[in-house]
Amino acid sequence: MKTVSVYAEDDRLREECGVFGVFQHDDAAALTALGLHALQHRGQEAAGIFTHDGEQFYSERRMGLVGDHFNRKDVIGRLKGRQAIGHVRYSTTGGSSKQNIQPLYAESDCGGFAVCHNGNLTNALTKRRELIKKGSIFYTTSDTEVILHMIARSQKKQFYERFIEALLQIDGGYALVGMTKNEMVGVRDPHGIRPLVLGKLNDSYVLASETCALDIINAEFIREIDNGEVVIINKDGLKSYRPFAHQPARPCVFEYIYFSRPDSIVGGRCVYDVRKKMGVELAIESAPEADVIVPIPDSGVPAAIGFSRQSGIPFELGIIRNHYVGRTFIEPEQKIRKLGVKLKHSANCYAIKGQRVVLIDDSVVRGTTSSKIVQMVREAGATEVHMRIASPPITHPDFYGIDTPDKSQLLAANKTLEEMRDYMGADSLHFITVDGVYRAMGYKDGRDNTNPQFTDHCFTGDYPTELKDQDEKLKDKQLSLLSELKV
Amino acid sequence: MKTVSVYAEDDRLREECGVFGVFQHDDAAALTALGLHALQHRGQEAAGIFTHDGEQFYSERRMGLVGDHFNRKDVIGRLKGRQAIGHVRYSTTGGSSKQNIQPLYAESDCGGFAVCHNGNLTNALTKRRELIKKGSIFYTTSDTEVILHMIARSQKKQFYERFIEALLQIDGGYALVGMTKNEMVGVRDPHGIRPLVLGKLNDSYVLASETCALDIINAEFIREIDNGEVVIINKDGLKSYRPFAHQPARPCVFEYIYFSRPDSIVGGRCVYDVRKKMGVELAIESAPEADVIVPIPDSGVPAAIGFSRQSGIPFELGIIRNHYVGRTFIEPEQKIRKLGVKLKHSANCYAIKGQRVVLIDDSVVRGTTSSKIVQMVREAGATEVHMRIASPPITHPDFYGIDTPDKSQLLAANKTLEEMRDYMGADSLHFITVDGVYRAMGYKDGRDNTNPQFTDHCFTGDYPTELKDQDEKLKDKQLSLLSELKV
Amino acid sequence: MKTVSVYAEDDRLREECGVFGVFQHDDAAALTALGLHALQHRGQEAAGIFTHDGEQFYSERRMGLVGDHFNRKDVIGRLKGRQAIGHVRYSTTGGSSKQNIQPLYAESDCGGFAVCHNGNLTNALTKRRELIKKGSIFYTTSDTEVILHMIARSQKKQFYERFIEALLQIDGGYALVGMTKNEMVGVRDPHGIRPLVLGKLNDSYVLASETCALDIINAEFIREIDNGEVVIINKDGLKSYRPFAHQPARPCVFEYIYFSRPDSIVGGRCVYDVRKKMGVELAIESAPEADVIVPIPDSGVPAAIGFSRQSGIPFELGIIRNHYVGRTFIEPEQKIRKLGVKLKHSANCYAIKGQRVVLIDDSVVRGTTSSKIVQMVREAGATEVHMRIASPPITHPDFYGIDTPDKSQLLAANKTLEEMRDYMGADSLHFITVDGVYRAMGYKDGRDNTNPQFTDHCFTGDYPTELKDQDEKLKDKQLSLLSELKV
Amino acid sequence: MKTVSVYAEDDRLREECGVFGVFQHDDAAALTALGLHALQHRGQEAAGIFTHDGEQFYSERRMGLVGDHFNRKDVIGRLKGRQAIGHVRYSTTGGSSKQNIQPLYAESDCGGFAVCHNGNLTNALTKRRELIKKGSIFYTTSDTEVILHMIARSQKKQFYERFIEALLQIDGGYALVGMTKNEMVGVRDPHGIRPLVLGKLNDSYVLASETCALDIINAEFIREIDNGEVVIINKDGLKSYRPFAHQPARPCVFEYIYFSRPDSIVGGRCVYDVRKKMGVELAIESAPEADVIVPIPDSGVPAAIGFSRQSGIPFELGIIRNHYVGRTFIEPEQKIRKLGVKLKHSANCYAIKGQRVVLIDDSVVRGTTSSKIVQMVREAGATEVHMRIASPPITHPDFYGIDTPDKSQLLAANKTLEEMRDYMGADSLHFITVDGVYRAMGYKDGRDNTNPQFTDHCFTGDYPTELKDQDEKLKDKQLSLLSELKV
Repeated sequence: MKTVSVYAEDDRLREECGVFGVFQHDDAAALTALGLHALQHRGQEAAGIFTHDGEQFYSERRMGLVGDHFNRKDVIGRLKGRQAIGHVRYSTTGGSSKQNIQPLYAESDCGGFAVCHNGNLTNALTKRRELIKKGSIFYTTSDTEVILHMIARSQKKQFYERFIEALLQIDGGYALVGMTKNEMVGVRDPHGIRPLVLGKLNDSYVLASETCALDIINAEFIREIDNGEVVIINKDGLKSYRPFAHQPARPCVFEYIYFSRPDSIVGGRCVYDVRKKMGVELAIESAPEADVIVPIPDSGVPAAIGFSRQSGIPFELGIIRNHYVGRTFIEPEQKIRKLGVKLKHSANCYAIKGQRVVLIDDSVVRGTTSSKIVQMVREAGATEVHMRIASPPITHPDFYGIDTPDKSQLLAANKTLEEMRDYMGADSLHFITVDGVYRAMGYKDGRDNTNPQFTDHCFTGDYPTELKDQDEKLKDKQLSLLSELKV
Repeated sequence: MKTVSVYAEDDRLREECGVFGVFQHDDAAALTALGLHALQHRGQEAAGIFTHDGEQFYSERRMGLVGDHFNRKDVIGRLKGRQAIGHVRYSTTGGSSKQNIQPLYAESDCGGFAVCHNGNLTNALTKRRELIKKGSIFYTTSDTEVILHMIARSQKKQFYERFIEALLQIDGGYALVGMTKNEMVGVRDPHGIRPLVLGKLNDSYVLASETCALDIINAEFIREIDNGEVVIINKDGLKSYRPFAHQPARPCVFEYIYFSRPDSIVGGRCVYDVRKKMGVELAIESAPEADVIVPIPDSGVPAAIGFSRQSGIPFELGIIRNHYVGRTFIEPEQKIRKLGVKLKHSANCYAIKGQRVVLIDDSVVRGTTSSKIVQMVREAGATEVHMRIASPPITHPDFYGIDTPDKSQLLAANKTLEEMRDYMGADSLHFITVDGVYRAMGYKDGRDNTNPQFTDHCFTGDYPTELKDQDEKLKDKQLSLLSELKV
Repeated sequence: MKTVSVYAEDDRLREECGVFGVFQHDDAAALTALGLHALQHRGQEAAGIFTHDGEQFYSERRMGLVGDHFNRKDVIGRLKGRQAIGHVRYSTTGGSSKQNIQPLYAESDCGGFAVCHNGNLTNALTKRRELIKKGSIFYTTSDTEVILHMIARSQKKQFYERFIEALLQIDGGYALVGMTKNEMVGVRDPHGIRPLVLGKLNDSYVLASETCALDIINAEFIREIDNGEVVIINKDGLKSYRPFAHQPARPCVFEYIYFSRPDSIVGGRCVYDVRKKMGVELAIESAPEADVIVPIPDSGVPAAIGFSRQSGIPFELGIIRNHYVGRTFIEPEQKIRKLGVKLKHSANCYAIKGQRVVLIDDSVVRGTTSSKIVQMVREAGATEVHMRIASPPITHPDFYGIDTPDKSQLLAANKTLEEMRDYMGADSLHFITVDGVYRAMGYKDGRDNTNPQFTDHCFTGDYPTELKDQDEKLKDKQLSLLSELKV
Repeated sequence: MKTVSVYAEDDRLREECGVFGVFQHDDAAALTALGLHALQHRGQEAAGIFTHDGEQFYSERRMGLVGDHFNRKDVIGRLKGRQAIGHVRYSTTGGSSKQNIQPLYAESDCGGFAVCHNGNLTNALTKRRELIKKGSIFYTTSDTEVILHMIARSQKKQFYERFIEALLQIDGGYALVGMTKNEMVGVRDPHGIRPLVLGKLNDSYVLASETCALDIINAEFIREIDNGEVVIINKDGLKSYRPFAHQPARPCVFEYIYFSRPDSIVGGRCVYDVRKKMGVELAIESAPEADVIVPIPDSGVPAAIGFSRQSGIPFELGIIRNHYVGRTFIEPEQKIRKLGVKLKHSANCYAIKGQRVVLIDDSVVRGTTSSKIVQMVREAGATEVHMRIASPPITHPDFYGIDTPDKSQLLAANKTLEEMRDYMGADSLHFITVDGVYRAMGYKDGRDNTNPQFTDHCFTGDYPTELKDQDEKLKDKQLSLLSELKV
């Protein structure tokens, strides 16, 4: 028997995490559970919450959705105290062990502390190697643990000094939220690649990956944490530090294209609005003669609405998504055509049959899904299938927390536009241009190639930081010599 | 600490089941798992599959989604044999015990047999009482078990004769699929209230609640099982019996409005198309002056597309749905406004702010959700909120397998239109008319009141069958005197 | 890899159950848990308790020891009410499913009732077949369910009348305890083969398989239930019925030899005392010249003490028992000699080396353990090994609740004494005579062959009842056509 | 509802661990599971095994008995490789978390290594504090982790050099077994307080806490590891190192009195023999006029046999032990007298009634059990109860791995002999003298007070090592600030 994966077929991008923290609120744990629920789209494999009640830390870390575990009275009841931080995580290859569930915790000479992380350190393996040489013992394969050891080894007195000392040793794209017994810290990497916002619920400060996590708890959105900014929140309020040499802000453009929830406000823009405008730009760039605009749900819907409005071609739900997905199913011996894609998507014949269809997707990674959906739409009776993609071709992998495949598996890194069209079996294919993306963002002149307004390395190869581990080819080194079945 | 339920707030209708069966195929269990996955929208609480390999029956019945359990090689591997039937079930009040998971199984003098059921028997309690008096021991609180006992007690030789003898004793709306060691049976109640379709995968017959379960396995759709038709499938092929006195077909109109998947074909109509046309009719009946059409996702989307197209008012995703829902969360002590609805829906401010909004929903049950969504949309900045409902007012409970609340809790059974509008806090409110529904179905003259084309008892109180248990007020009788924690 | 079973190697006899009940006591469930704990030696696979609180029944049935589950506050707390019955069960071949855990429960026209059973019905399969023919649906493979169906089908008004009507249809050796919402019943089969005692804790009646279950809760021992006596206990007190034609009492001699706890009083005799006297009689019959008396622990110890005292040969713990037994271990590829027996027993070299050893065991079933222990003792340095068995040769299987192998696997049914000695590798072998057993019981003249004082069918083939299922060769019929993995 | 603990009532001593290792054998994991099963009496809370197959380490660590988990093919199959070490652990207050299950594992600059430990370090907290100051992060509350960090921080090249460097920093009583990818190490503390033996199975070396673990796998006993000896076993054979300043051997006398299995050979003596001789010495010191000798089972049995033989008073099983113990039960509201002790022990009235009874126990800790057993024996009808204890009064706590209560709870540290007798309710009470213990060991002149042959600190307060943590009163410091529910 063979297993068919819903996700192997589905070549989406995945972000690894969402972070949340609330300081000094009677309902710290319950609010954190709600905030993480609102961030669930950023990571669905596992979730964790740490609290402190003035006496000790409390923690729960579980595989599964926030609502599978952190919706229970006994769980929230065990998480005592008025300050809490929490984390949701995506599945990452080989690292799905319970020990890797964040927040991670350690005790140092200056007391206990917990840290959680969205992003990726580009020199984690190099630093890990150095720390092991000095006698540090690692218990996880997570890059976050590197930061913990740096803090533990620091000889500074205050936690925040140790935290900053650690930050100065790491490279990459990250948003961290941490907690000691009496303070909460937040930081965004020097380029602000990963997002982090500040809110307030009455007198309590809140940190979160996205504004949608503020909305669910009725917290007020104050501002984004700046690139390179460290905030320390304690009983005396919030202090801001800027320990890094100044760098231009370059937030990741993928937060708009794919990761953030449509109703979140990122960099002052409504994500839904940006996506619709990308559809508009895409239609301006390349609208074919056609009968219907069909989004690949759910992420292609806003761009499809924009495309339809701009082009005047009617919008139809020509593809239906099954939201009740398991990760895999057993393939019958007599193989079913396109089974993988059908587990999640089905063609809505009525809307497609005899039509010239424009399919709108947000991005193309390996291209396998696109190819199967085109076939499915053709078999459902479409007379023409035109593929329009609301992001430029992905030609380079990400190293800042987005789970992209090797360059060798990126369709656009290995094929010309015509080859891609042919691979997908579409009648025509167009990707929005990089400038089109920037225009949708509000920059009429497109990308500022001298000082790019975003990091768009997956489309341009223009990485904003050093890639130490990559350069030293540490990437494939086995992180642990131990195989243990966690239960 | 208080628990906030996502679903108590969410006053949707729920159907209790989906059924599936495949006869004589090497991959019987794997195909059944796929079919049930496609029917997952009909029931998400539990799933079960029975097979027979010529020697014995095999069975797996579990709480949870199909993809949580029936995606495992060992599970499918244990379900040996070339014939299988399966079932998905919704949560029903008080009955969430493992013993109630279908298919149910029994052994009689003519061998073992398994039966699964979508629908509800309207004389189940009356019949249960009679059987207990005769010494039958019941192990579940499911009405399906009544049928098992009738089959077991029949003195007929052949299983299909016993099955028909049992059918002649029951009333209600039902689609049953059953199995012995060498045959599969299917039946639809005399009015065809609940759906059942016949398909073929090469030489193997398939029975399923909806065509979407045929599509996922590439089976060919043959036809619907007729109202009152019993089909017996064995090695010699399919035989059709019509044991009941003839009754006019009156399929349940709610399959179009809410239950069936948009891409399923029901009664020759594409469900997505019907829903869009309901939006069109609704707009014809009552389109206000407004800036945007906003569906309550996901079920309101097709009607909103139709409404938008008919009215010319632009369609916007003004409400975002969080698909990662747990069933409940812990309410913070300092209560959060509209927390229940926010766990599942959030307002997309950009699309709503400063706009005159038309909200499109498929139906209103208790009205609590509508009320909260109207408030949420207002708080997000809408200047006007007009509510349009793509089904008529629900004034009567269902007794054929749809989980409706008591009449006392049905908003439309207890308030005038104006009172409902006031309760919801909307600026205007309109429900599609009953005739509008029939027009969307293709009957230009609306409902044929002499011989109604569908059963629409929830809107009209016109029940197609006797309601024996109701008449004898057996409804609230406790079904079991035993409380056992199932693990 | 191969699995070595501790128990396959260990060819002990096993009884299937212990029963307990208490009527009208505030702590009914907690007392029942304690009573079952005291009866744990009678069955270690599963345990169950039913209670009734005037409104409904409560039940918990679990695999594992009483102390694994029924020691929890929440469990005892769920088992509300002032009356309770409970059961412990041994593992029986093929029947280890959760559904078979007793008490079993059913609801009839006269209300709900629960029944638990120690023993075996010798016409269960015959009756099961008849009931299925009449349309009864069986949910377990337990013979106890036959009784439930008979009660459910009875047309008598009162539960106790139905219960008695059922008893009159069954044959075998049994002690049953049952419960309705307002009464408790107990019965011992017409010959009193299986034990049942009556106690009182203040004003509350208690029924139990052995007196040790009364002792643990400080209940007073009143008397044994007579053979063929039915007791009905309700708020008006205890009533005794004798519905059967009179039969002479023939309690099972194995309760003394092996099953009952040494500190229990059975038939007015202390079990420990009887076992010691069996050792004395054995020594009188056949005491070899030897240096040490070594019991096979734990069951051989009392007889060894008696043998030592009578013979004057010193008693030594020459074999040590490991009480922490799993059921199986993985055999290393390089097989370890006598691994099976070593998982449970080890030779205490000091006490054995250079000695002429008399090994005392309570019984021999297949002889495999005896053989391995003799080898182990020899390898530990014994110069001579004399085997003395405190029960006569087992030549016939039991059909009254003791799990004995087929006759073909009973050592004594297939070999002469000399062949058995040779098979075991002992220097000499002696089994106590049947008359020796009766002398140890206090009958100086031994067995009364006209009216035997006990049933000793395993030694004599003299079965006190009909063996209907055996005669009709129903034994091997498959009870269920369904294979379901219970979790 | 109140919970009654079997163990709170039962004031036994508990040792924390047993260790086992085998090097270069095809069945390394299966043999280790068997060895640990034989050592199960040394720890029943949890068990763990590590293996290495030349490529990586494999590990399984579980709560429960060895036979609950390590008897499964899949588990043993996952533990690949030809070298294995394993550990069984007793429950210790507050430390029952999964993370503490040994062996513990770490990766250092010189590779991965695993260590398991029987005993206790008397300067663990002092060292832990120093390491945290230097930036080490601790993940367990086990003292074993201190050793791991010392090894990880060592700047030596070879693992065995690092291991020895770590040993030189620790104090206490310990037997350690460790493993890298290509060697196995064993060490016994400078005084040899905790036991460790060396065996051979064909060409494979075996290390184990006791000889009974060699016996079960048919390994040959080679010798004990010397006090202060480090053995390194690799493909070139076994090398012995003696890195410590020479100290006289002072093995713990409690291994004879209580911990080791009766059939183990410790220090050249059979444990069963020593215990019997203690009974003999006890009878010489103080045999009352009496009718029966009754051991408190199981540990009092050998001494009772010796006492009976010396005194000529007959031996009887006057107290029966229930081996099926859960840890707790629910106390009925109407309290049952002596329930705690009854859960484990019951009086065998026949053997006791009307008799003058000598009770033999191996030791007295808090005295609560003794007191309840004396009462139980009196209520069973004994006319006199004489208590004889086969070890001297315990007046001092242990700090080398035996779980003793605070001095304030040790009966003999707080009461005179007469007060103890009175507390127990016995007619007379005698503890064996310290010299009596040494005589039973074969030292006719008793204890050599200049160079004591054993460590007997619990009786004499003569601790063989420094007690750094005690002296600095670090004992009660909370080890972790984190409370996490492990599942």
